[in-house]
Amino acid sequence: MNEKNSPSALGDMPKEDFRRFGHAIVDRIADYFEEMENLPVLSQIEPGSLRGALPDSPPEAGEDFGDVLSDVDQLILPAVTHWNHPNFHGLFSTSTSSVGVFGEMFAAAFDMKAMLWRTAPASTELEDVVLDWLRQMMGLPDHFEGIIYDTASVSTMHAIAAARERAGLNVRELGMSGREDLPLMCVYASEHVHSSIDKACITLGLGTRSLRKIAVNDRFEMIPEALSAAIEEDIEAGYVPICVIPTIGTTSSSSVDPVDAIADICEKHGIWLHVDTAYAGSAAILPEMHHYFKGCERADSIVTNPHKWLFTPFDLSVLYCRDLGDLKQAFSIVPEYLKTNDESGVKNGMDYGIQLGRRFRALKLWFVIRYFGREGLIDRIRDHCRLARLFASWVEDSPNFELLAPVPFALVCFRACPSGVDLDALNERIMNEINASGDAYLSHTKLNGIFTLRLSVGSIRVEERHLRKIWDILNNRI
Amino acid sequence: MNEKNSPSALGDMPKEDFRRFGHAIVDRIADYFEEMENLPVLSQIEPGSLRGALPDSPPEAGEDFGDVLSDVDQLILPAVTHWNHPNFHGLFSTSTSSVGVFGEMFAAAFDMKAMLWRTAPASTELEDVVLDWLRQMMGLPDHFEGIIYDTASVSTMHAIAAARERAGLNVRELGMSGREDLPLMCVYASEHVHSSIDKACITLGLGTRSLRKIAVNDRFEMIPEALSAAIEEDIEAGYVPICVIPTIGTTSSSSVDPVDAIADICEKHGIWLHVDTAYAGSAAILPEMHHYFKGCERADSIVTNPHKWLFTPFDLSVLYCRDLGDLKQAFSIVPEYLKTNDESGVKNGMDYGIQLGRRFRALKLWFVIRYFGREGLIDRIRDHCRLARLFASWVEDSPNFELLAPVPFALVCFRACPSGVDLDALNERIMNEINASGDAYLSHTKLNGIFTLRLSVGSIRVEERHLRKIWDILNNRI
Repeated sequence: MNEKNSPSALGDMPKEDFRRFGHAIVDRIADYFEEMENLPVLSQIEPGSLRGALPDSPPEAGEDFGDVLSDVDQLILPAVTHWNHPNFHGLFSTSTSSVGVFGEMFAAAFDMKAMLWRTAPASTELEDVVLDWLRQMMGLPDHFEGIIYDTASVSTMHAIAAARERAGLNVRELGMSGREDLPLMCVYASEHVHSSIDKACITLGLGTRSLRKIAVNDRFEMIPEALSAAIEEDIEAGYVPICVIPTIGTTSSSSVDPVDAIADICEKHGIWLHVDTAYAGSAAILPEMHHYFKGCERADSIVTNPHKWLFTPFDLSVLYCRDLGDLKQAFSIVPEYLKTNDESGVKNGMDYGIQLGRRFRALKLWFVIRYFGREGLIDRIRDHCRLARLFASWVEDSPNFELLAPVPFALVCFRACPSGVDLDALNERIMNEINASGDAYLSHTKLNGIFTLRLSVGSIRVEERHLRKIWDILNNRI
Repeated sequence: MNEKNSPSALGDMPKEDFRRFGHAIVDRIADYFEEMENLPVLSQIEPGSLRGALPDSPPEAGEDFGDVLSDVDQLILPAVTHWNHPNFHGLFSTSTSSVGVFGEMFAAAFDMKAMLWRTAPASTELEDVVLDWLRQMMGLPDHFEGIIYDTASVSTMHAIAAARERAGLNVRELGMSGREDLPLMCVYASEHVHSSIDKACITLGLGTRSLRKIAVNDRFEMIPEALSAAIEEDIEAGYVPICVIPTIGTTSSSSVDPVDAIADICEKHGIWLHVDTAYAGSAAILPEMHHYFKGCERADSIVTNPHKWLFTPFDLSVLYCRDLGDLKQAFSIVPEYLKTNDESGVKNGMDYGIQLGRRFRALKLWFVIRYFGREGLIDRIRDHCRLARLFASWVEDSPNFELLAPVPFALVCFRACPSGVDLDALNERIMNEINASGDAYLSHTKLNGIFTLRLSVGSIRVEERHLRKIWDILNNRI
C-alpha cells in the first residue's frame, strides 16, 4: 500500500514520485517508438484474455505505481494494436508524432475545460490561431473560421444540424415531432459516403430514409446529374433538401466527388454544402493536390481530421464554416451559471456545439505545425503519396495483381487476381492470414461487389522498405 | 531550422530528442504542480493578447522544439486558467491527478482508435473492467453495463436517443420530419436541469419545446407530483413521453431530485429513466452518501463523470445502461470496410454511439483507481465534503453571510448579506473582484432570482487552509 493513501495523507502523488515515474514513462514510450517495428501490428490476444487477467474488483488500498507500470508492459501492451506501426495499412493509416504526445501531456496537466473564454483563454485563442494556420496551409479562403471537435462524426453532425436550422423550419425550438406540416428534410451524399453520415441522420432525427445516396461513376465519384435529378424530384414531392455532402477522399477508395459541379447545384437550390475531407484534407497542403479540392472554397462547411494524416494524436477534427454564427444559432444556450462579465467580443467555445467543456486540443496541432513546419509536413505527406503510387505501380506491373480504383492520395485498392480461383475467397484469405500473422495490417472494402484489399500509407514512420515488405508478403501468399 | 525536417530526412523526431524533451516536459509539469498555488487562478491576460502575440502564418521550416517549449512558458502558461488550483472554486472544481496525466501520455503514444475490438483490444476490454470496478464502487447493481464517452452532454444525448428509439416510433429509419402522424415526443427534467439537456433536445430534433421543466421545491428538488401531472397532461393531449431526467447534484445548487419517487412514475408509464449525476456520481463511492442515490438502481441509464470529481483528466464521461443493446439498436451501422471475421461475442465500441473512433480513456481511470485505491478515493472525496460543510458552518455562524441552499456534497451556495445594501450588486461585485485578483475563482447562479455565490470544493490539492483563505478574502471584501 502506498503510504500517501493513508487517511492522514491526502493530496496527489508526491512530487518526487511524479518526476521519477514520469521520466520512466517517457523512456518507456521512447523504447516503444523504437521497438514498435518488431511488434505484431494487430494485437495477437484472444478476445476476453485481458479482461480475464484483471481482478474482478477494484483494489481497496492504493497500489504502488511501479506495479501498475509493470502491468502496462505485461498486460496492456500485448493488447495494443499498433496504429503507429509503419506496416499498419488498414482503414486509414494514422499515427502520432512525438510532439503530438508532448501536446497531450501538457493538455492533461493543465486539464482546462474550454467552455468559456475565461476558463481557458489559452485553448480558445490558440485554437483560432492554429486553425487559421491550417486554413492557409490548405489553401482555403479567409472567410472560413474553424472549430475543433473530437471526431469527424461529430463535426459532420454539427454541420448537418446547422444546415437543418438554416432551412428555416425552426427545428431548434419546435423540433420535428408533432408537426403535421413539417416536410421531409433530405440530405444527399454518394453511395460511398462514410457511415458517420448515416449516424448523423439517425442522431439528428432525420432518419436513414432522409439520406439519399447518389450513384457514382466508374471512378466511384458522385454523378452531379444524378444529384441534381434527386434534388429536383424531392422538391417536386414537397420535400426540403437541407444538405449535400460530397467527399474528397472517400473511405472505401479515396475517390473524389466533383465538389465544384456539386456546388453549382447547391447554389442553385440554396442548399448547405458540407465537404467531408476528413482523411484527404491533409493532402490539401500539397500544391500539386489543389485541383482535387476545387470547389471547397464555395462550401458552407468542411471537415478535416489532423488526427488522421497530420501526425496529431487522436482526437482532433476540424470543422471549417463559412459562418460560425450558423453553429451558434443552432446550439448556443447560456444558463445563469455560465454568464460572465467578459467583454462581448470574447469567443466562448461552448456556444458552437453540443459539448460544453472542450479539451485543449489546439496545443498538439500547434506543436506539430511548429516542429515540422509547413515544408516538413508537405514532405512527409508527399512521400506517402509517392509510396502509394510506387506500390500501385508494382500492382500494375504484376500479372498476379490488379488495381481496382484510382490512387489520388495514399490509398491503394487492389486484389490478387491469379486465374482459375475464386478471387473474393482468395483475397479474403490473404488478408486474414496477413493480419493474423502480425506482420502487417490490411483492411478491405467492396467495390462493385468485388472483395477489394485496401492498403493505406500514412504512418510517420513508413519507409519504402515497409512497402516492399508487404509487397513480398502478398506475393508469397498467393 | 531543425535538420530533421530537411527533405532528405523524413520520419519522426529523433529518439534522443524525444527523451530529452520528454524529460524536460515531465519536470516542467512537476514544477507546475508545485508552483501552481502561486499563480493567479483565473488567467489575467486580456482577450486577444495571446492571439496577438502569435504569428499570423505557420512557419515554413520546422522550428527547434526548445523554442516551442519556451513559448509554452512565456505565452501559453499566462493564458491558462488553473483548474487544478486548490482555490479554483468556480463551476465545479475539478482536477487531474498525476497518474491521470500518465494515463494520457500512454493513450497519446499508443494512439489507438477503439472502433472495432481488433483495432484496440486493450481499450475495449480495459474499459469493461474499469467501468465494472467503478460500478461496484458506486454501489450500482450488476445489470448495469457502461460505456465511456467524452462529456456528459454526449452521454446524455445518447441516452435520450436510445429512449427515443425505444418509444417504438422508428425514428432511426423514418426520422421525425414528413410524418403527419408522429406525435410530439416529450422529455422531462427539473427547472434546474443542466443546459446540456436543452442542447440534446435541440440536437436530436426534439426541439426545446419538447423539454418540460418541472417545478422544484424550496430545496430545489423536482416535485414528483408536478412531474406526474405534466406527464398525464401530455398523454391526455396525445403526446408521447419518452424520457425523464432527474439530477443528483444539479449544477446550480447540487440539489438532489427524488429518483426513487420519479422511478415509480416512469415505471407506471413505461418511460425511460435517465439519471444525471455527472458531478455527484463520484460521491456515490461513499457509503454515507448512498441514500442520495436511492432509486438509481431502477434507472435505464445513468451518467457520471470521473473527469469531474475523480481526479481523472478531462475528458471521461461514463454512461451506464440497464441494457447497452438499446444503444446498439439506436446507433449500430457496420459498413463493409468495418466488417471483420472477429468472433461474434466481441464488443465493438463503434456500435454504441455516434463516434466511430474512441480514445483509450479507460487507462487513466484504471491508473487512478489502482493508485489511490477505493479507500484513497473515498478519503479524498469525504474530505472535500467535510471542507464544504466546514465552510458552510462558517457562513452560518457569520452575521454577514447566509447559506442559500443545502450542502449535500461539496458545493456551497451562499451570499454576503450585510444590511442596507443591494445584495445582488454587492455579491456580484465581490465575485468579480475576487476573480479579477487571481486569488481564487468563484462562480454564481441565481436561486429564486437571488444572485448566489457558488463555492465548489473538489481539487485534489485542496486543504483546509485554502478554504480559510477564501473565507478571509470574502470577509475582507464586504
